[in-house]
Order: sequence, then C-alpha cells, then structure tokens
Amino acid sequence: MAGRPDVGTLRRYRRACDYLAAAMIHLQDNVLLTEPLRPEHLKPRPLGHWGTCPGLTLVYSALDRLVADTGQRTLLVTGPGHGAPAIHANLWLEGTHAEYDPELSRDGRGLAELVRRFSWPGGFPSHLSPEVPGVIHEGGELGYALATAFGAAFDDPGLLVACVVGDGEAETGPTAAAWHSPKFTGPGDGRVLPILHLNGYKISSPTLYEGMSDTELDQYFSGCGWTPRVIDVRGAADPDTLLGDALARAHAHTTGPPPMIVLRSEKGFGLPDTAPDGTPPAGTFHAHQVPFAGAGEDPDQLTALENWLRSYRPDELFGTGGAPEADLLTVPPPASLQLGRVPQANGGRLRKDLPLPATGTFAVDVDRPGGTDASAPEVLGSWVAELIREAPEVFRVVCPDELESNKLGALLAVTARQFDREVPGHTEHLDRRGRVLEVLSEHLCQGWLQGYLLTGRHGLFPCYEAFVSIVDSMVNQYAKFLKMSGEVPWRAPVASLNYLLSSDGWRQDHNGYSHQGPGFLNQMLTKKADTARIYLPPDANTLLHTMHRCLSSTDLINVVVAGKQNGPQWLSHDEAEAHCRAGTAVWPWASNEDGAPDVVLACAGTTPTIETLAAVTLLRERTPELRVRVVNVVDLLSLCPADRHPHGLPDEGFAECFAEDVPVVFAFHGYPSAVHEVLHGRPGSDRFHVHGYLEEGTTTTPFDLLASNRMSRHDLAADAVRRARGWASAGGELSRTLVRERDDLLALSYRDGRDPDEITGWRWSA
Amino acid sequence: MAGRPDVGTLRRYRRACDYLAAAMIHLQDNVLLTEPLRPEHLKPRPLGHWGTCPGLTLVYSALDRLVADTGQRTLLVTGPGHGAPAIHANLWLEGTHAEYDPELSRDGRGLAELVRRFSWPGGFPSHLSPEVPGVIHEGGELGYALATAFGAAFDDPGLLVACVVGDGEAETGPTAAAWHSPKFTGPGDGRVLPILHLNGYKISSPTLYEGMSDTELDQYFSGCGWTPRVIDVRGAADPDTLLGDALARAHAHTTGPPPMIVLRSEKGFGLPDTAPDGTPPAGTFHAHQVPFAGAGEDPDQLTALENWLRSYRPDELFGTGGAPEADLLTVPPPASLQLGRVPQANGGRLRKDLPLPATGTFAVDVDRPGGTDASAPEVLGSWVAELIREAPEVFRVVCPDELESNKLGALLAVTARQFDREVPGHTEHLDRRGRVLEVLSEHLCQGWLQGYLLTGRHGLFPCYEAFVSIVDSMVNQYAKFLKMSGEVPWRAPVASLNYLLSSDGWRQDHNGYSHQGPGFLNQMLTKKADTARIYLPPDANTLLHTMHRCLSSTDLINVVVAGKQNGPQWLSHDEAEAHCRAGTAVWPWASNEDGAPDVVLACAGTTPTIETLAAVTLLRERTPELRVRVVNVVDLLSLCPADRHPHGLPDEGFAECFAEDVPVVFAFHGYPSAVHEVLHGRPGSDRFHVHGYLEEGTTTTPFDLLASNRMSRHDLAADAVRRARGWASAGGELSRTLVRERDDLLALSYRDGRDPDEITGWRWSA
Repeated sequence: MAGRPDVGTLRRYRRACDYLAAAMIHLQDNVLLTEPLRPEHLKPRPLGHWGTCPGLTLVYSALDRLVADTGQRTLLVTGPGHGAPAIHANLWLEGTHAEYDPELSRDGRGLAELVRRFSWPGGFPSHLSPEVPGVIHEGGELGYALATAFGAAFDDPGLLVACVVGDGEAETGPTAAAWHSPKFTGPGDGRVLPILHLNGYKISSPTLYEGMSDTELDQYFSGCGWTPRVIDVRGAADPDTLLGDALARAHAHTTGPPPMIVLRSEKGFGLPDTAPDGTPPAGTFHAHQVPFAGAGEDPDQLTALENWLRSYRPDELFGTGGAPEADLLTVPPPASLQLGRVPQANGGRLRKDLPLPATGTFAVDVDRPGGTDASAPEVLGSWVAELIREAPEVFRVVCPDELESNKLGALLAVTARQFDREVPGHTEHLDRRGRVLEVLSEHLCQGWLQGYLLTGRHGLFPCYEAFVSIVDSMVNQYAKFLKMSGEVPWRAPVASLNYLLSSDGWRQDHNGYSHQGPGFLNQMLTKKADTARIYLPPDANTLLHTMHRCLSSTDLINVVVAGKQNGPQWLSHDEAEAHCRAGTAVWPWASNEDGAPDVVLACAGTTPTIETLAAVTLLRERTPELRVRVVNVVDLLSLCPADRHPHGLPDEGFAECFAEDVPVVFAFHGYPSAVHEVLHGRPGSDRFHVHGYLEEGTTTTPFDLLASNRMSRHDLAADAVRRARGWASAGGELSRTLVRERDDLLALSYRDGRDPDEITGWRWSA
Repeated sequence: MAGRPDVGTLRRYRRACDYLAAAMIHLQDNVLLTEPLRPEHLKPRPLGHWGTCPGLTLVYSALDRLVADTGQRTLLVTGPGHGAPAIHANLWLEGTHAEYDPELSRDGRGLAELVRRFSWPGGFPSHLSPEVPGVIHEGGELGYALATAFGAAFDDPGLLVACVVGDGEAETGPTAAAWHSPKFTGPGDGRVLPILHLNGYKISSPTLYEGMSDTELDQYFSGCGWTPRVIDVRGAADPDTLLGDALARAHAHTTGPPPMIVLRSEKGFGLPDTAPDGTPPAGTFHAHQVPFAGAGEDPDQLTALENWLRSYRPDELFGTGGAPEADLLTVPPPASLQLGRVPQANGGRLRKDLPLPATGTFAVDVDRPGGTDASAPEVLGSWVAELIREAPEVFRVVCPDELESNKLGALLAVTARQFDREVPGHTEHLDRRGRVLEVLSEHLCQGWLQGYLLTGRHGLFPCYEAFVSIVDSMVNQYAKFLKMSGEVPWRAPVASLNYLLSSDGWRQDHNGYSHQGPGFLNQMLTKKADTARIYLPPDANTLLHTMHRCLSSTDLINVVVAGKQNGPQWLSHDEAEAHCRAGTAVWPWASNEDGAPDVVLACAGTTPTIETLAAVTLLRERTPELRVRVVNVVDLLSLCPADRHPHGLPDEGFAECFAEDVPVVFAFHGYPSAVHEVLHGRPGSDRFHVHGYLEEGTTTTPFDLLASNRMSRHDLAADAVRRARGWASAGGELSRTLVRERDDLLALSYRDGRDPDEITGWRWSA
C-alpha cells in the first residue's frame, strides 16, 4: 500500500462507504448514479438500517488505520448488526468480499452486485450473519456483543477485539453485566476495546445513555473498571483524527484500568437536515431505518434521495467502470491484517481436536448393577481435570458460581477461578489465571463461551438446570448462527456448545419450587435436527462416555442432564460405552421377560432410572408373574423417527426396544410433553404413558416431590400393573395398594422430616 | 407501643431474630435450648441459607424504626429470598405470622411451630414465596428484585419500596440494567430505596462487587443516577445506628439523584470464627448455607452448634413459655405499618376491574370477509388509548422500544413515554409522566410489569415475538408465583400478565432470521393449565375481543399473537365475538361442503389464516369438486382435550369442527410441535398434518419465507389435495403443479425483488 493515508483520503474513504451503504438500502440499479435517478432504479422493497452505518464506518476506518500503523491483529465485533451495509461497504473496499466471492469483485460489476444483493430475496440478510466474512456475532438480538468480544479475547494474548456497542444495546441487562468483564480477564488473555457508539436514539426514542451527562458516563465506566474517554464527533472538523487519536492512545495504554471509548455522534450523520415530509431525519430516530422509504411513489422523496446520494459525489470516488479510486485502497491495512480476514472470525479453521483423556482410567468400577454408589459429575470432574492438565490453553469452563455445587470441585485441584481483583477476605481457588470463569450471570457465561468457541476453542457450561432457561433466547440465536454457518462453504466447523445440567429439579434439596424447571429440553426440541442433542446419562460411566462424545463433536448444541447426588451406578465402563452408542437399549438384567413383556418400563434421567428400578423391585415382590422389560434412554433424540432426526432409531430397532402393542410406562426427567414430541410420528405412540415433571413442588423431600408429580416408584409400579392388567383386575387392586403405601410413606416423612428413601433403605438387587 | 426502642433493644431484637433463624435452619425440637442439645433435636435434613440472614434482619429492624419514626408506608422487596429464615423471624416477632395463621402465635407454641415448619416437608419453603406475608418477590432465581421494586413503586407516590439486592444477584444482567430505572420514574411514582447488601461472597467465591473499591462503588452508582452511601458495619460498635441514620438521611433526601445504600457486612455475621472442621465460617462463603450441617453425626459440631446458639442467650429473649420479652415488641411499628402487612404485598386486594371501553366503537366494519384491510394492532391501539384515557393511574404499557413499530402509536396521542431526563436533541412523546415505559430491555419491562401487577394494577407488554424469549425464565418463575399464590387462601387474584406479540416472524421485513422465533408458545405450553392462555386472533375484531377478555381476567399469563401488517379482515364485530367465545370454529363462508368435507383446512394466526384462504382459492379454481372445510383457531388451548385444559373443547365440539376420519391440513403460526402437543390425547390426532415454522429463513420476501417453511398457499393446497386424493391420483399431479407454480413465483421474486403477493394481487372473494 502506498503510504499512510491522510485525513482527506480517510474522509473520501468514508464518503465511499457511506455512499455504498445508502445505495445498498435504496438502489437496485443505476448504482453509481450515472444517469438521473428514476423509480425503477429503486429496490421495490427498500429494507435496512441507515442510522448506525456512518458511525460504523468511522470506527472501521479508524481501526484500519490503527491496524495498519501498529500491525495489531484485530477482530471486530459489531453489536449493531443491523448496520450491515456499512460493514459490507468496508469489506468490499478492502477486497475481502472479492476474496470470498468473485462475484463481489472490486470493480463496477462487483459493486452493482453488492448493492443489489443487500436485503434482496436470496441475497445478503439485512443484518450481519455468518455469511459475512469477519463476523462472529450477528447482532440481531441485542445484548451480547460485549460478552462475545471477551470470549474471543480469552487465551489469545496477541489479539485485540474491538467491540462496537450501540447505545440501544447498552440498555440491555446482558450488556450492563458485561461491562464488568475486565475483572475476569488475566495476563494470558487478549484485550477488548469497547466503543460505545452513542448516537442518541433507538427506533423511536432517545436512549437512556443519551440521557446521561459526560460526567455520569465517566463515573459509570470508571466504576465498572475502565478508563473511559468520551469523544464527540458531532460538528467536529476532523472526526477521523479525533477517533484515530483516541484509538492510538487506547492501544498505547498499558497501566491502570483498561481503556474504553464513548463515541458521541449524530445518528445517521450525512443525511440532509429535513426530509420532504418535514420529518427531521438527520441526527434523530427518524434516521434509524430507510431514510427515503417512499421514494418509489413520491417524486419529492425521489429528488431528495437523489440529491442526498449525489452529495457523496460518487463520480469522484469510483472510476468510470465503477472500481474504487486508488487512494481509497490505501486505507485498509494489508490483506493479512484486514478486519474481514482475521483468522479468529472463522474459528473453525483454528480449532484443533481436544486431546481427550481416555475415560477408562476414570470410570467407576461397577461389578453388578446398583452395587456401587457415586456422584456422576464428581467422577466426570476428575476426567475434566485431566483434560485441563493436557489442554490448558484451549478449554474453559464457564459457570454461574456453581462449580462446586455441581460437584465439579475436582477441577479446582488443577486450575483456579480466574479473577483479576484482590479480595481482602477469605478466598479459595482464585487466581489471575485459571481455566474456570465463575460469575453469577448465565448471560455472561453464555456470551463468553460463544465468543470462545467461535474463535476456535472448546468449553463446558455447567449450569443449574432451572436457570439455564435464562439464556433461552441466546441459545435460539446461537442455534441460528450454527445453522447458517453450516450453509456457508468457507466456514469451518467449530467445537460444540456443551451444557452440563447436574443440579436438576428432582434433587434441589436446599431450594424449592423456583429451582425446578426442566423446560430447556423443550426449548432444545424446537431446534433443527442438525443442531440439537439431548443426553440423559443415568450414571457416572454413561456420563463419561457422553461427555467424551460431546467434546469430540462440532457445530452442535449438546445438553447433558445428569444428577449430581451420590447414587447407584448401573453400568460398567464397557457396558456404558455400548449403551451410549445404542442411545436407547433394553437392560436385560433388570427385565424378567423372554422377548414378550406384558409391560415396558422405560426411563430417561438419573432420578427416573432409580425410580423405575425401584418400581421393578416392587413389581417383582408383589406380582412376580408380570413380565417386565426395562428400557433406558440415554440419547433422547434416538426416540425420534429416523426421518426426523439423524439419531432416530430405525423402526425395527425401536420395536426391538419397546416391543409392539404393549403399554410403555415411561419415567422421564422433564416435562412429559418432551417425550410425546420426540415420539411424534412413531406408529402407536399412544401406548406410551409418560410420567414426568408436572410443575408440582415446593419444599419437600425428594420422595414427596416425586409423589406430587406422580413419578415415584409406587406411581410407576401402580401405573404398570394397571396398564398391563387393567383396572378391573387384581392389577387394579394392587395399583390402589401401591398408591396407599406411597401416601403412608409420605405421612411418615411429614411427621419425621426424613426422606422415605432413607427410611426404607431400598437398594437394587438383581 | 412503648416509646422509641433504644439501641440496646434493637440489638436484643436482632439477637432474637438471628437466634430464630439459626434455630429454623437446624432444630426441630428443644427450640429454646431449655435442655442440652441432643442429635434428636436436630432436623434430619437441615436445609437453608444462613449467610444472608443476619444482614437481612439488620435491614428489616432498621426499616422498622424508620417506619415507626416517620409513618412511611413501606414495602420490602427481598432479593436474597433464600434468607427466608430472617424474614420469618421478623414476621413472627411483629405478629404478622399470627395474624395470617393462628398456629404461628407469638408464644412458645407458635415459636416451636415456626422453627419446625421452616424447610420441612409440607412446611415453609426454604425461600420466600407467596405463602409468606409481605412478599411479592420470591428471590429464587436471582436478578429481578430491583425491577420488581420499581414496578411496585410506579403510580403509588406515597409508597416507599425498600429493596435489598444481594451482591450475588448484583452480578446478573437484569439487575445491572435495573440500576438505571430511576431515569424512568416520574413525579407520580413512589420511591425505591435500594440497599445493596455487600457481604462479599456467593456460594463459593467472592462477588465481583467485593472486588470493587469504595471509590468504584461510588462512581458506578453515581453514574447510574443515584446518590450512593457506603455503610460498613464490619466491626462497627453500633451497626443499628449506622444503618438507621443512613436510612433516615435517605428518607429525608429530597433533591438531586435519589439515594441508595451500599451495606458492607460480614457474611453470616454472628458465627464463631472457626468451625470444628477448621473451615472459617464467619465472614466467608462457608457461611452461605447450613453452618453446622454435620451436627447430627459429629459430636464436635453438635457442641459447636449448641455453643453458637447459646451465644444468643435465648433465655434472655423469650420468657419461660417462649413468648418474646415485652421490649422486643417495641421494635416493630404499629400493625397497620408493618412490613408484613403492607396492602401492596397482597395486591389482589387493591385491584379493581379496569373500566374497559366497549369494543364496538373501535371495531372495523367488515361487510364481507376479506373486503376490508386493516392492521389489527393499529385498531387495538385506539381502543387501548381510550382505556388509558379512562384509567390513567392503574394501567401501564411496557415495551422494548417497539410501541410504534408494533403499530400501537395511537397510545401516544393520549399519553407519553415516561422518561425523567432532559434529552438535548429531537424527541417525540417523551415526558416525565406517561403511561408508556419503553426501554430496550425485555428484562426490565417484565420485572417492572410484574411488580406493577402484583401490587394491584394492570398492564400490557407488547413485544417482538422472537425476543420475548429473553424473559423465558422470568415467565417460568412468575408462572410458579401465580400457581402458588392460587393455593394461598388469603392471596387475592391479581390482574393477568398480558403479552401482545404483533411483530411476528412471518413479516420481519426489515430484519432476518434472528427475528424469527415463535418458541415462546412452546414455552407457555409447559405451564400449568390454570395459568397459560394462548390466543391467535386472525384479524382486528377478534384481537379486540381477545384483548378485552385478557384485560378482564386474573391470575393468568395471556399470550396474544396478532400480526401487525395491514391485511384482510374476516369477521365483523359480532362474528368475532362469537368466534372468540367458541375458541375454534368452522368458517362456513370459506367452506364448500355440507357436513361431509374431503379435507379440513385449519389455521391459527394472522399469516396462516391468509395463506389458508388463498389456498382455498387455489383449490376452488383447480379442483372445485373437492369439498373443503375451513376451521379457524383463535384459542389454541381449545384444541387440548377437555380433561387437560379448562378451555379444551369437549370431544363432540371438537368433532363438529374437525369432522372425523378426514385429513386436516393445519397451517400454524409457530412450530408445528406446539399443535401436536396440544392435540396430544385427542383420538386420531395423526390425521392432523401441521405446517408451521421450520427454522428456515433469512432475508427474503414474506412469500419466500412461507415457501421455505412449506407454509405458502401453494404448499397448503398441494398438501390438501394430496391428503384428500392420494399421491397416485390426479390429486398428486395437481399437487406437483402447485409446487412448481410456487417455485416459478419465487424465481420471479428473486429476479424482481418483489413479493409474489404483490405480483399476483390475490384477494379473497367468496
């Protein structure tokens, strides 16, 4: 490139980008205004958001200069993803677009294609998306740019992540929490440089940050742990130098709280002061979307649009063929440093398989089913600790202050919780470097992990089951990002997003009704079959195999539910491996039938499995002639018909497990509706009678909770005899007896404050 | 009451509360230690959280004094709801518990009952809950106390809402956003006094706020718009006076930013410095839950527990019979002012029915189906505007900056967006008083509205459909609160929580894939039948009747989905009323069959209804002999079997709508799984073939989106002939032709950038 661009060149560069962005929103033809603008040159459905575009280009071009001057490898996370036209313009001018798609060549043909393709059926979405190079964050749903930026920076000390946060987005809770992220970054991490773009307005109101004085802004961000600097480019003679100097100072900043920038600008600057309809577009919320949406019908608007577009003097910026003038090309840094091509933005390319330890060493010895007790997450913890030992730089655990509560304390023997502040009192396992990020914000955990995964690393998110729903909407968006990424040829697969829900609703002993909520599984069932996986390993060895599978996988969202309490173990390491491979399988050692059961007792989940086997004990004692088959489901989606999900068992395999035409009493960890949903389309699915969580519960013993939701061993056994034998038979009588016994046990528990399990001391014996 | 309690009395009062809280967590018998402590006196399953208790009592008793001194009507919102033992102790000592439940009398018998009942099967939950007087916020899932407090304060200028925010909770995004709430309160509102309880630790880590200096705390909260005051009671000789004075100063504060208090204390203060196992419980995270959980098995712990409990000298606090000493009773204010009895905490008692305007005046004239165009929310807006005119003080609209985008701009003709800051630039409809609260935070909208409803008022939450999932988990918790409230005899019903989702995924013209997400309906289907309602009014007049019903209802969560775009209107005001009453009904004017259809075309939602009627047009043209019935569903849960939901149609009514044994092609607004779920248990439900959102979409025309998800008129018509006639017949050929035509239309749209709808100009004609 030919030397450092001067301010005049930067201004011309921005004029070119702003022109292109305005053209993308309005034009389908005559994109360089080589002839007078006519209605047929306009997009019939002009869609997009102008308001944030000129500010984004100001930032992009200033970053270009910083990168060119310093060689700093820089990733840009754009919170206002609806400002996509600005990003597209910059990507086109720097040549990234042409690199990824020859049709977007840096000439008149490519320019016309770019302008037309934006917000056009089958073209580029109106927001940033995985189809756009350089992007790891869509910015459609607002709130997560800053946390994503920090996620990208962890463990990448040479990286600068510049993050534009819109002042609309800044009103969200997740963003407000994310301002505290520097407290969680350490010396092994890259830096995040937030640029709060304060252009004053949302769709139709001023933003709350616009209502804050410079003093308040300074106080707020200083209090969060930043060194803030407020830049106001409204009416500034030289905004490029103002912002460029601020960026340079920020880059040179080495001691004290890290720098952040508040960039005050007009909203949608560059627009005329008034529109033909009298609205004042420039610097107001009226600049938010399409400035001249009515130009197709209203000749005054058409004229105003043409005047506005011509005010950028495109003929001075693009040659007759449409190629950008040579001086404009001096603004972007060399290709290897361009924001659109930073390798971290296509993290799958950087991803390496994790060196997963063999699970065998960590497995629980299980001589006979039910003969050993263990806490599955505790066992998993030792394995993950070993993984951390072997892969200290590319694997992180995020958790809302629940690592030890979730029985993963073993990790803290080999690493620490990363926290950058001195705490005067008593702490344990806290350090400036550590693989564990604990903060009481599921939003931050999720955002950090998304940024970390999308830049090529791996991670695990242990979370209380009930509270993972806090990130439902983030998961919605992430699932969409994965789905679209899969359709983009140049995007390489990233490591899967792995949840471990081990503090489940059935055993919330210190807590109550508020901590019971298995709805995240229903939420996952709305996702594409290519994206969602749900596992319910019933014991430690199945959990080990399940997690091994999850951590080896890519581009998935894996949800693993495994109870944390000490409890009976069912399968040896080898049996567990086979079981996990099958997804759903008969447990012959728990069954007493020879291929012709009277009833199938199926179960999925730690607690339902225990209750089912206890129900089998009851049935064997009370009605030994009843032929019972026990089926355990570890991979919930294996129940789906094979044409609906890649894990779905073929019909024959399904029938081998569940027999045909016999009742199935299914004990399920979550809401029964989730099982009905996965079974939908299986022939004869109405023979499945699903027990699960019915939203009944408060402070209670675990047994009481099961009974309230009709999921206790007594309820399952009673249902099994009733379904197999009918109400009117002796089965009906036995069924009623079982329910009475359940209630007697409960009365005992209310009197003594003990769990009936502890009173009866049941254990499985074959 | 006998005069103002001195500091000694306050300390004795707190000793009594702390003792009771400790006893609640550990003891089931010998609750006043009248004999030596033995293992059988302990709860077999000691559960609860001590760490926050002494701090909560310090706050409660200081508020008692403030209230007694000033007569200030005060509601307490307790963020750390797991500190329930402290609140129970205070409620018992002030006599509120005895008032609501004679078994909790203020004597030895009541004391024993209180201690035993806490965290006991069938007793009080370990967290605050609707069963506890004075409570409008459970505090189980953390993050929403502060927003709830503001909700309670809106439009109640005489009320002070004191809100304890734990420093764990303070790490959450929703809390971080809520600190900005003062910018949205006006002169007509009550005051919120936040008390950030900074005791330094979560379950097993220090909090991030503990890592902040006093200077940073001051900067942060000043920046948010508060006048903060940091009080440190660690080692203070007289914490009561320290906090009492701070509260008095805060109460007297009249100018400048509102006051808030940061209360630094030891975690779980009052514990001994070390426990028998060597852990340092006092002032560390080890004090979080049960301090002496092993006392039942470990004699050393038992001794330590007894020593600790006796350090409170219960014999000096409670008479021989167990009644509190007289001086303790001088601390709580007179009954009418006690925190446990403030009427706002049982808001149903204060609730009055809204003066709902008659809908007829606002209805759209519909001479014949499809003959009129309108935007349903726009029509609704005029009606709601009239409602606001008539009920200006008890109705609020919360919205994430989308009121105008959701076509409810008519409201702004009669009221404004409430915002308390001067904004230098251009604003519209902004005022210090206004019925509308717009902030780009669904969490704040939800929290504010919950507090507002639970204190006896009414409201509406218009929200982009895709982004209402941001509050999934808040809705989970609110549904639980409603369910439990319904089981508490003294809780009166509150107004329902009403969502209007009018920016739906099918018509996100300016936006893309990220704005498509109908999963909130699936989320609602996990709720108890007593709580959840889902309506999909297909046009303006049905929306009017639906919203009239929602705003008349109590204790429900009503979700109303109604597209905002201008579109055809189907039913007159009277027809709409009958249709809404039926929930699901045949539209005879759209059907051509005499009680014996070949196929039923069912639809639910604005866009699916349009597509279905357009499909009928196609079928009439192409295969007029096919007997088609059209059924429209406005009340989704009317499809549930009647034994599963109170709105469920009886089997006969269901058969009258959907006939029997004929295929039903169902065009649904959301994920098809939601329809399968509500139909579960209906005989023969596998004849329903549901079209809906399949997570396919990006920038596109509305028609392209429908086609991608197999929900276009062509797809519906093709499916109908195929199902009715079979693939092999002429129906199969027609079906294929229709799909080809769909693809031709799409190609046209890709070329021209127009929606095929605009090209074909289809309109319904009977």
